[in-house]
Amino acid sequence: MTMTIQKSGKTGPDLAFAINAKVKQAQAKFGKANVINAVLGTLADDEGNIIALDSFYKRLETMDRGLIASYAPIEGEKTFRDTVINLLFEDYRPDAYIEAVSTPGGTGAIRNGIFAYADIGDPVICHDYFWQPYQKMCREFDRDFRTYNFFTKDFKFDLASYKKCQDEALKEHDRLVSIINSPGNNPTGYSLSDEEWDKVLEISKEAVARGKKITLLIDVAYIEFAGDGEQKKFFNKFSKLPENLMVLVAFSMSKAYTAYGLRSGAVIGISSYKQVIEEFKDAMATSARVNWSNGVHAPQLILVDLAKEENKGKYDKELASLKAMLKERADVFVGEAAKHNLEIIPYFGGFFAFVPTARAFEITENLEKENIFTIPSAKGIRIALCATNKADVVKLVERIAFYMNK
Amino acid sequence: MTMTIQKSGKTGPDLAFAINAKVKQAQAKFGKANVINAVLGTLADDEGNIIALDSFYKRLETMDRGLIASYAPIEGEKTFRDTVINLLFEDYRPDAYIEAVSTPGGTGAIRNGIFAYADIGDPVICHDYFWQPYQKMCREFDRDFRTYNFFTKDFKFDLASYKKCQDEALKEHDRLVSIINSPGNNPTGYSLSDEEWDKVLEISKEAVARGKKITLLIDVAYIEFAGDGEQKKFFNKFSKLPENLMVLVAFSMSKAYTAYGLRSGAVIGISSYKQVIEEFKDAMATSARVNWSNGVHAPQLILVDLAKEENKGKYDKELASLKAMLKERADVFVGEAAKHNLEIIPYFGGFFAFVPTARAFEITENLEKENIFTIPSAKGIRIALCATNKADVVKLVERIAFYMNK
Repeated sequence: MTMTIQKSGKTGPDLAFAINAKVKQAQAKFGKANVINAVLGTLADDEGNIIALDSFYKRLETMDRGLIASYAPIEGEKTFRDTVINLLFEDYRPDAYIEAVSTPGGTGAIRNGIFAYADIGDPVICHDYFWQPYQKMCREFDRDFRTYNFFTKDFKFDLASYKKCQDEALKEHDRLVSIINSPGNNPTGYSLSDEEWDKVLEISKEAVARGKKITLLIDVAYIEFAGDGEQKKFFNKFSKLPENLMVLVAFSMSKAYTAYGLRSGAVIGISSYKQVIEEFKDAMATSARVNWSNGVHAPQLILVDLAKEENKGKYDKELASLKAMLKERADVFVGEAAKHNLEIIPYFGGFFAFVPTARAFEITENLEKENIFTIPSAKGIRIALCATNKADVVKLVERIAFYMNK
Repeated sequence: MTMTIQKSGKTGPDLAFAINAKVKQAQAKFGKANVINAVLGTLADDEGNIIALDSFYKRLETMDRGLIASYAPIEGEKTFRDTVINLLFEDYRPDAYIEAVSTPGGTGAIRNGIFAYADIGDPVICHDYFWQPYQKMCREFDRDFRTYNFFTKDFKFDLASYKKCQDEALKEHDRLVSIINSPGNNPTGYSLSDEEWDKVLEISKEAVARGKKITLLIDVAYIEFAGDGEQKKFFNKFSKLPENLMVLVAFSMSKAYTAYGLRSGAVIGISSYKQVIEEFKDAMATSARVNWSNGVHAPQLILVDLAKEENKGKYDKELASLKAMLKERADVFVGEAAKHNLEIIPYFGGFFAFVPTARAFEITENLEKENIFTIPSAKGIRIALCATNKADVVKLVERIAFYMNK
């Protein structure tokens, strides 16, 4: 008995959202202060309440109602698209043709990139610690999701594994999409170094020289929380790339504007060829029209307003305070982990830190009995630093170390 | 030179949004009062300004910021899903298992229905006056979009043509999706009668009896503007349907809540089989996760609040005033058309009226020279009654009749 098509559904509930439901139950039963919630990727203050930036929400509350009510253009407001490009690249804008098209959060951007740049059956490669929806997207769209070993033994990006995966995938295919979630990778907190990016481009160019089409799809959801500007240097490397090497960047307003629930983002295309970029814009606008019609209007207008010279100061200050809060928690995490001899993946930024272990499910089951909630996977335990205060981080590391040594 | 996959993009700009850009140019040049804008499907007051309901936007302005900022559950808030079902069906809830999953507007609901209930190459049938994105979706997802003759000569639903199209499509396929946009069809204003719905179900059941799987995907975007309750009677017919006859309803908050730019809606599944509905919910949640992650949170919460006994009165009154405004314009349109002997498709409700003609492009070109903007298609001229005042409707009908008789 089935009415849906075969590949539809059947992926089971989303783990992060399912565990988050358990957190809410525990909080209701034991009180919020007695539950450590290191699950969901939203910034919370030290009392565990979600943070909503004043500069952003004040504008939503006072915006002309007609503007909020009206449809945005299908590809997004022109001012929004231009401002996203400026904000994203800052001083490291590649010397290339660049276009942006609005999407519902980073998800829409990644979905569009996979859909338009890999055909049915084509390979989509990714590091083997990854955000689950990448794989679900590929399953739903019939793309061939393959992973490579993310890290060498000393926790550097495993370039040999990357190259092997790329070359293997291209044996019987002419194109691939490579998803890289950096800087501030989810779930690990890792960022590729500039030298590692050079190597990725070198490996890509080798394939392109053999007539292959390579699309790098870079998920930068956490980029504003992964450095003080220097983490954007690598964008500059996407200047003057060959015709068959396309770069897509998935931009999200969720984190840096605390606008998760308003679903706004953009997909940015970078190419040295005008025609390739026109084709990009057309493909992204069509995907928009047939999947969600157009983006949410208000956040597009707010982003533009906050980027204005006279408003930027206030917003930048608020963002800086979020970054500082997150950095303090991360410093505590790294310090406590060292104190307890707990191995972690090098943390460079982002909302999450990661303890590699093959016993993650067993350990998190024990943690949950103590009302400590994290996300387990085959490779280890993800800890949402964005959601926990420093005291909780100290306790959490101690308890993980306790069970790891057991 | 192409980096995107073959079927991606290349559908050209969206006609309604492209003509709307021309309207804005004309308004800037000649003044708003000198331009008749009967293009886009958003309700405007008599001065041409978009209407934003006070009851809705007051709640957005005063909502807890943390709630707006936070992610909605992937399938939507439980209270939202339940309330949508109650509001949609009112007294005509089918005796069946029913579930709702949130989507970005009606577009997301239709996209999900096509994607999960027709496989690649499977037929998707539709009346031959239709909202263009249906066809664009099928092209992007590689579904086989086919149309049948919508109307008999006396403007009734052409059931013989419907049956022929269904049976032809099923010759080499085991399943199909049938999209029906009623009541208050866009672009024609037509609504299927209860007897026509009976016949559609009869025709569907004939195919199901032969082992075929039929999914009726009903786009009810304009249902609140197509009657005073009686237009929902047909929902009751979806009780106790056979296992292989699935009904999906695409619900949108855009029109009845003047929330176009906030992108909120839902897909509702109706089946007499529990397992079929569980499969529906799973498939819709997965499609949500891989395309847009989750819906916009705030409008879900506002819909629930407005449906509460203590708030319903104010909202219902506002909605009634919108309906009355639209009905007055429609009455003028129908009256003026009769006066000028202008043939129109019977208008039963919705935002649009339609003048059938093979000369639509020629006529609208002339109209545009007089700063009168409408949407032409191969079958005729669509007039957005939602956007024009009564005086403009009088003038517009006179000018269309003038060019028709030329």
